[in-house]
Amino acid sequence: MPDFKPVVQTHIITADSPIKPGTVNLFTRFLFEQGFYISEIHSFDDTAEDRFFIRIEFRANTATEFNREDFCQQFEARASAFDMKWQLASSPYKSKVVIMVSKHDHCLNDLLYRYRTGDLDIEIPAIISNHPDLEALAKWHDIPYYHLPITKETKPEQEAKVLKIIQDSEADLVVLARYMQVLSNGMCKKLAGKAINIHHSLLPGFKGARPYYQAYDRGIKLVGATAHYVSDDLDEGPIITQGVETVDHTYYPQDLAAKGRDIECLTLSRAVRCHIEHRIFLNGKKTVIFSK
Amino acid sequence: MPDFKPVVQTHIITADSPIKPGTVNLFTRFLFEQGFYISEIHSFDDTAEDRFFIRIEFRANTATEFNREDFCQQFEARASAFDMKWQLASSPYKSKVVIMVSKHDHCLNDLLYRYRTGDLDIEIPAIISNHPDLEALAKWHDIPYYHLPITKETKPEQEAKVLKIIQDSEADLVVLARYMQVLSNGMCKKLAGKAINIHHSLLPGFKGARPYYQAYDRGIKLVGATAHYVSDDLDEGPIITQGVETVDHTYYPQDLAAKGRDIECLTLSRAVRCHIEHRIFLNGKKTVIFSK
Amino acid sequence: MPDFKPVVQTHIITADSPIKPGTVNLFTRFLFEQGFYISEIHSFDDTAEDRFFIRIEFRANTATEFNREDFCQQFEARASAFDMKWQLASSPYKSKVVIMVSKHDHCLNDLLYRYRTGDLDIEIPAIISNHPDLEALAKWHDIPYYHLPITKETKPEQEAKVLKIIQDSEADLVVLARYMQVLSNGMCKKLAGKAINIHHSLLPGFKGARPYYQAYDRGIKLVGATAHYVSDDLDEGPIITQGVETVDHTYYPQDLAAKGRDIECLTLSRAVRCHIEHRIFLNGKKTVIFSK
Amino acid sequence: MPDFKPVVQTHIITADSPIKPGTVNLFTRFLFEQGFYISEIHSFDDTAEDRFFIRIEFRANTATEFNREDFCQQFEARASAFDMKWQLASSPYKSKVVIMVSKHDHCLNDLLYRYRTGDLDIEIPAIISNHPDLEALAKWHDIPYYHLPITKETKPEQEAKVLKIIQDSEADLVVLARYMQVLSNGMCKKLAGKAINIHHSLLPGFKGARPYYQAYDRGIKLVGATAHYVSDDLDEGPIITQGVETVDHTYYPQDLAAKGRDIECLTLSRAVRCHIEHRIFLNGKKTVIFSK
Repeated sequence: MPDFKPVVQTHIITADSPIKPGTVNLFTRFLFEQGFYISEIHSFDDTAEDRFFIRIEFRANTATEFNREDFCQQFEARASAFDMKWQLASSPYKSKVVIMVSKHDHCLNDLLYRYRTGDLDIEIPAIISNHPDLEALAKWHDIPYYHLPITKETKPEQEAKVLKIIQDSEADLVVLARYMQVLSNGMCKKLAGKAINIHHSLLPGFKGARPYYQAYDRGIKLVGATAHYVSDDLDEGPIITQGVETVDHTYYPQDLAAKGRDIECLTLSRAVRCHIEHRIFLNGKKTVIFSK
Repeated sequence: MPDFKPVVQTHIITADSPIKPGTVNLFTRFLFEQGFYISEIHSFDDTAEDRFFIRIEFRANTATEFNREDFCQQFEARASAFDMKWQLASSPYKSKVVIMVSKHDHCLNDLLYRYRTGDLDIEIPAIISNHPDLEALAKWHDIPYYHLPITKETKPEQEAKVLKIIQDSEADLVVLARYMQVLSNGMCKKLAGKAINIHHSLLPGFKGARPYYQAYDRGIKLVGATAHYVSDDLDEGPIITQGVETVDHTYYPQDLAAKGRDIECLTLSRAVRCHIEHRIFLNGKKTVIFSK
Repeated sequence: MPDFKPVVQTHIITADSPIKPGTVNLFTRFLFEQGFYISEIHSFDDTAEDRFFIRIEFRANTATEFNREDFCQQFEARASAFDMKWQLASSPYKSKVVIMVSKHDHCLNDLLYRYRTGDLDIEIPAIISNHPDLEALAKWHDIPYYHLPITKETKPEQEAKVLKIIQDSEADLVVLARYMQVLSNGMCKKLAGKAINIHHSLLPGFKGARPYYQAYDRGIKLVGATAHYVSDDLDEGPIITQGVETVDHTYYPQDLAAKGRDIECLTLSRAVRCHIEHRIFLNGKKTVIFSK
Repeated sequence: MPDFKPVVQTHIITADSPIKPGTVNLFTRFLFEQGFYISEIHSFDDTAEDRFFIRIEFRANTATEFNREDFCQQFEARASAFDMKWQLASSPYKSKVVIMVSKHDHCLNDLLYRYRTGDLDIEIPAIISNHPDLEALAKWHDIPYYHLPITKETKPEQEAKVLKIIQDSEADLVVLARYMQVLSNGMCKKLAGKAINIHHSLLPGFKGARPYYQAYDRGIKLVGATAHYVSDDLDEGPIITQGVETVDHTYYPQDLAAKGRDIECLTLSRAVRCHIEHRIFLNGKKTVIFSK
C-alpha cells in the first residue's frame, strides 16, 4: 500500500494542568516560533475536575536536527507558570513493553502476533511468568522468558525480581496479560499508571476471582472485558478500554470464557495501542483518552 | 409488503420440566396425533440445573375449530408423568400490558409508539404514575392514566390501588418504564416473573440509585441498560436483555443519561417483545430465552 | 442533575484550508489576543487530500459583549492569507431544521420526541410531506405541516414550493426523514451539504429502492442504515453516520424493516446532532467529523 | 473448570425438505423408538421458499454401541417419503479442515491458535499457499505446507493439485483464509458449499479487489467483513457471518485494513465454528444457521 503518512521525524507533546487562560496558546505559539508544524491538536477541559488536557502531534517545517534538550528547557521555561505536567515523545515511538503471564496464553499470543507483524510498533524486552508453560511461544518470537515461580512465602522476593527485570529493561509499560497473581500493595504503587491489566468482566461488575463463573450465575446477556491501569485498589484502577459481546442461556462458564477470550485480546491490545501512542491521561480515578 | 406469514390460527406451547427421556416426543407425538403442524420447535437442556425447556409454534393441518379446553385436558393427561409446567397461548397473541412510570417519559414514549404502530402487538389497559406529568401523552393515545401519588406513609395503600388496577385490567404483564419507586417486598413477590423493570446500568454494575452518576465516577467506557424481571431482591431479578453503547471521557452524567435513554428504550422494548411472544422462561435466578 | 457546563456565551469556529504552516497558530493567537479562552480544540490533516480541518470551542475570559461583526472582520483579515473557508456559530446554538416525510413516521416521531424534550436543541419551523397522513403528529407538537402532493407532472412546482418554505423559514438544515421521493437534480444541487437523508441500508450496499427486500434476497446477517448529505448523485452523498444490528435467517423483509426502523432513528438523530453541533466538514465526497 | 457437558457419545442429525405435515414427528418418533434422548432440537420453516430445516442433538439413553449403518438405513426407510436431504454426525466431531492462504497471515494465525488450543476442535491436514512465506508458521504447528505457485498459464494444473490435496486429505471443509486468487469456475463448482471464503467488506458493498481502498474512497463509517460459502458467482456465495467495527475520517486505507484484520479473524472463525458444529444449511443463495 502507498504510505500517505510523512516520513520525517514527528513528535507528540502531551500535558495536563489546571484550567487557565492561555494554556492552548502556550503550546501553539511556542511550536510556531520554533518552526514546527502542528499536524494534529486535541484538547479537553474536565470542568468537573477543573483540569485541562492536551495532545499535539508536530514536526519541523524544515529538515533540521531536533535538539531534545533545548526544546525541553525552553518549553519548561514557559510552561512553569501553568503548574503543568508534560511529556515529549519523538518518533520512532518504539515503546518497551514487558509482558507478564501465567498459563492462559490468548492475550500473549495476540500481543506477540501484533508485535511480530508490526501492528503494535513495540519492543518486548521480557516476558515474565510464574509458570514455565509459555516459554516455547516466547522462544519462537526470540524473546527472553523469565520463569519466576511464586508462593505466599516467596512473594516479596519474586516481586523484587520482577521489578528488577522491568527496571533493567527500561520498560515504558508493563502488561498483565492474564497474570493470575494479585500484586502486593507495594508493587501496585510502584507500577501505578505504568502497568495495564486485563480483567475478564465489565468492571465494576464481577470484580475479583472467577468473573466468568460469577457472570454465569447471574445470567448475564452481555459478556465483556476491561483493560485498566494498575492502582493500589484491586480491580479499581482507571479504566482504559472495555469490550463486550452478546451471549445467551446456552453459554456455560467455559463458553463465556471462550467468547471472553476474543474480547480480552481486542480490549487489551487497544489499551496498549492507546498507551504507546501517548493518547491516555490519568485523571484521578479515571482516564482521558484522545483516541483515534 | 406482501405477508409471508400464515393467517390461520397459530398456537404456542411452552414448558419446562426436569430432564427425562421422552420429553420432546411427548409434545411432537401429541401434536401429530391431534392433527397439528409444528412450524417451529426449539428446546434447551440446562445440564447444570438438570432442567428441560421447550417452545413450539403449531397450527392445525386443516381448518377446524380449536377447542382449548379439550386440548389442555388431553395434553395434561400425558404431561402429568413428567412433572412439567406448561402454558398454551393462541393467536391473536394480544397481551395486556400495564405500564408504570414516574416523570421520565422516554421509555413510555417508545412503548406507546410501538403500540400505536402495531410494532408491539399489545393492549395497554392502564398507565399508572406517581406523578401527573405524563397524562397528556397517555391521553393522546387514548389510554386511561392513573395518577397515584405515593409517600412513605401511603405506600401500602398506593400499592394496593396499583395491584387492583393490574388485576381489574387482567394484565398479562406489568412494565416498570422508569418507575422511580422501590416496590415493597410484598409487591415484588406478587409481581415476580410478571413485571419487567428497566435498570439504567449493566447489572450487576451500578445497582441502586443514580447509576449514571456512579458510572461517571467510575470512568466507564461503555454505558448500558438491563431489563429484568422483578423479584424480591432489588436489582437482582432474572436478566432478560442488556444493551450497551460506547462512551468516553467527554460524557458528563447528563450525557451518559442522554445516551443511556436510547439504550433503555431498545433494551426494554426487546424484553417486552420476548415476553409477549412467549419466548422467556424463568430458570431460578436466570432466564432461558428462545429469541428470534 | 447539576449542570457542569458553563452558562456564559460560547462560540464555535470551524474552518478548512490547504495544509500550510501556521494554520493552527492563526486561530489560537487571534483568540488569545482577543481575550478568548479555548475550551476545546481539535484539528485533522487529511494528508491524502492535502487539507486541514479545525474546530474550536471558545468563550470570553471576561463577561463582555460579543461583537460578531468586528470579530469576523478582524479574523478574516488574517485568514485571507490561508485560502480558508470558515464559519462562526454562537450560543444558543438553535438550528432551524425543516423535516420532510412521506408516510413512514418512525424517524419523524423520534426527531419530534428529541425536539420536545430538548435532547435535540433545535427549532422546527416546518414539516413538509407529499402525503397528509402525519399531520396529527405535527399538530400535537404545534408545528406547521405542509401537505404538498407530488406527481411526475407537478414535480417542478412542488419542489419550488418546498424550496420556498425552506427559504422562508431560514432553515439551517433540511432532514429527509424517510421522504420517499427522488429529488430532482436541480433540487439536489440546491440542498447539497444542507440536507441530510436517511437511507435504510449500509451504503454502498443496497442502493436505490426497497433496500430491505434486496437485503433479504441476499441473505445478509447485519442490517443497517446510513445518514448522508444529499448530493447530486443519488445515494452517493457524503456519509455522516452508519448504524447496524445483527439479524438471522428468521427475518423476512418486514422483520428487517422493523429492526431497521430502530437503527434508522438512531443513525439519523446522531447525524442531525453532529450537524447542529457544527462537528461535520465536507471533504470532497467524504466527511470529517469531530465527534463527541 | 468443571465440565457441565455429558461425555457419552453424542450425535447431530440435520435435514431439510419441503414443508409437509409430520416432518418433526418423523425425527422425534424415530429417535424415541430407537432409545435416544434428544438434548436439543431446533427447526425453522422458510415459508417464502416452502422449505423446512431441522437440527437435532441426541444421544443414547443407555450406554450401547452406536451402529451407524443400521441407524442410517432404518431412518432413510422412513425419510424417503419426505423428499429429504439429511446428514448424521457423531462425536468426536473432528472435522478435517484444509486452509488456503497467500501472504496475509492474520486469519491463518488466528485459526492455528484456535486449533492449537482446542478452541476449534479440528484437524488441519494441509495448508496450501501460492507463496512460500507462511511455511514457518505452519511448521511450528506441525502441519504440512504445500507451496503451489500459480500463474495465468499454470492455473488449471495448480488447481488440480489443490483439489488432489483436498481429496487425499478427505477434507470436510476448505477455508480460504485470505487466499488472494480468484478460483476458476470449475474449481468454484467443485467447492460450492464446502469452502468458506472471508471477504474483507460488508458484502454486497465493495465486491471484488481492494475493498479497503474502495471503502476509504467512499468515506464509510463502519468497516466490516463477510464470511461466505464459495459459489460459482464470485463474492455472491451464501453469507454465513458478518462482522463490523466503527471507524472515522482518520482511517487511511492501511488503517481500515488493520482494524479490518481483527474483524476478519473473528468473522471467519465464527463461520468455521458454525460449519463444524453442523449448524449451517444452504438455502438457495442464502443460509439458515441454528447458531449458538
